[in-house]
Amino acid sequence: MNIYRYEQNPLITPADVKPHREGFEVIGAFNAGVAEYKGETILLLRVAERPVSPDPNIVLAPVYDPEKQDLELVEIRLDDESYDFSDPRVIVKKTDAPAFEYLTSLSYLRIARSKDGRHFAIDDEPFIYPSNSLEIFGIEDPRISQIGDTYYIYFSAVSPVGIGEAMVSTKDFRTWTHHGLIFGPDNKDVIIFPECINGKYYALHRPTTKSVGRPEIWIAESDNLLYWGNHKHLIGLREGMWDSGRIGGGAVPIRTERGWLELYHGATKDHRYCMGAVLLDLNDPTQVIARSGKPVMEPEADYETKGFFGDVVFSCGATVHGDVVRMYYGVADTSMACAELSLKEILESLEPAEQPAR
Amino acid sequence: MNIYRYEQNPLITPADVKPHREGFEVIGAFNAGVAEYKGETILLLRVAERPVSPDPNIVLAPVYDPEKQDLELVEIRLDDESYDFSDPRVIVKKTDAPAFEYLTSLSYLRIARSKDGRHFAIDDEPFIYPSNSLEIFGIEDPRISQIGDTYYIYFSAVSPVGIGEAMVSTKDFRTWTHHGLIFGPDNKDVIIFPECINGKYYALHRPTTKSVGRPEIWIAESDNLLYWGNHKHLIGLREGMWDSGRIGGGAVPIRTERGWLELYHGATKDHRYCMGAVLLDLNDPTQVIARSGKPVMEPEADYETKGFFGDVVFSCGATVHGDVVRMYYGVADTSMACAELSLKEILESLEPAEQPAR
Repeated sequence: MNIYRYEQNPLITPADVKPHREGFEVIGAFNAGVAEYKGETILLLRVAERPVSPDPNIVLAPVYDPEKQDLELVEIRLDDESYDFSDPRVIVKKTDAPAFEYLTSLSYLRIARSKDGRHFAIDDEPFIYPSNSLEIFGIEDPRISQIGDTYYIYFSAVSPVGIGEAMVSTKDFRTWTHHGLIFGPDNKDVIIFPECINGKYYALHRPTTKSVGRPEIWIAESDNLLYWGNHKHLIGLREGMWDSGRIGGGAVPIRTERGWLELYHGATKDHRYCMGAVLLDLNDPTQVIARSGKPVMEPEADYETKGFFGDVVFSCGATVHGDVVRMYYGVADTSMACAELSLKEILESLEPAEQPAR
Repeated sequence: MNIYRYEQNPLITPADVKPHREGFEVIGAFNAGVAEYKGETILLLRVAERPVSPDPNIVLAPVYDPEKQDLELVEIRLDDESYDFSDPRVIVKKTDAPAFEYLTSLSYLRIARSKDGRHFAIDDEPFIYPSNSLEIFGIEDPRISQIGDTYYIYFSAVSPVGIGEAMVSTKDFRTWTHHGLIFGPDNKDVIIFPECINGKYYALHRPTTKSVGRPEIWIAESDNLLYWGNHKHLIGLREGMWDSGRIGGGAVPIRTERGWLELYHGATKDHRYCMGAVLLDLNDPTQVIARSGKPVMEPEADYETKGFFGDVVFSCGATVHGDVVRMYYGVADTSMACAELSLKEILESLEPAEQPAR
């Protein structure tokens, strides 16, 4: 597989993003949704901001208050032994582990625009900020599906009652309409197909289950993009392979002659995130045709292996022109990068899949 | 609260149900969905059948094979130290706890019919049996919503990829149509309102979350009963009370002058299951009006406190005529019982609720 990482990588780092609030630092500008709008490439960045604690013994957890429409900062002492601080992203009450009690940063969505796809100008203000009780810990990892002249933007909505998937829509990347949670908790990595297939919309989604089951990719159908049903399990983890720990949809599926090509992420049990691909039937995307035996792309460059949460390449969107796939991807839960791949080479690298009984 | 437990309780026990398969024993006939059809009360029983192991050192786990359309029995040695057998309902691989690997019994749905609501005749054959890959560990805890002349029957569909909620519909309790999973995993205790409210259908549901959140009641909307969205968190656990451990919908909501009355189950952290009630706005069931401070009904009778899984009253349906609520309920994960309650008394027992910000 030939991978052309841009010389400008990482394209956007936290240092490029001015904090939206005083007293905060930007620790991540990553996992961006991707769209093309009026001749420009738009990266809808997940920006993670962390409150700077004036006391080294206290960590501040940011929580959006939907009544006051403002952030509240919860103080937790680092010597409080009822908490586990070992994962820098979350604050875990030991009695509730592995569930978390607070996040250490709050994520929201901010637009970066580019004429050439390499040099981006970042908006001064957030585009989408938490706005209701289901988003009080932040909104994360957006994807964008363009259907006609409407851009559907959907993202993880995080709150103390769970992580679900919320959706907004826009026609101009200036104003937007909120459509509520389209998938209830625990769910993330929703990917809506960019067109109707035999009269139905389809979406990939990634439930996180507790009673039984693993973090794997499901598919659902809809007739209005707001209500979803007929959930089916699509692909699972593969023991001993690059996607043995968890998987989830990545970019919006790409229509090819051979099928819908989905670039998805897979991680090992020790959290090394790679990108691979799965090919789904053009007329019935619940049918799997082929899948990556090896990753399409692995964390190798310095900016991919080192950072806030290293050894991660995580794409939420790509653009395609002819054979060239420009895969934008978050690196190390920190920054954004881009690599060009050949659509033909990705398709040729896939191995035929065996479909389980339904 | 005046509670009239029927003298005939328990109305149906495992001993009343002939095993559907040779070599199996019925260990549960409980958590039945309830409907009225052609002047009869129908209990759609969850029947749990367990394969009888010829070897006391081996436990047999029943698994439906959708290709062969038959059961397979997996043998596991009781001295295999990689498994935990302490919960009699499940077989847990210690490395995957608390997720389970197999169930020790397989549940399916069987009809019991009665003219007087007390004496039931049980069909010889299953009405609904697992039929696809999402139901291979069984189908559990049905509810029935009658809308017009159609009965929508929905239940937990259990398989190695998760527990979701599947739906079938029938007009005659003879033949049925399968509509797939209406809620993806982990989800159970779905309760569909019996009529459209301002042009929308509503359902309660109970996600089980892993990352963050607790087993609490959510509400979703639909325009066709198959696809669901606009998920909102409805009511949560209450520390120190009868519903501090887990809650979930019970019977189909009852339309009253004061609002939709939902009989729901609540358990403490040590798994004592009671029934209580919540009152929802007639025109907007996402709004909570009032809720039980104390349980409407607690496990007290012998058949409620003792059994396969004791200290459980768990209702999946009720009939209402005038002021009389006939609440049918599973007891001790074993049998079925019925109690009559006064609708007026339940309503008067509720305490006004404070609605959180949205």
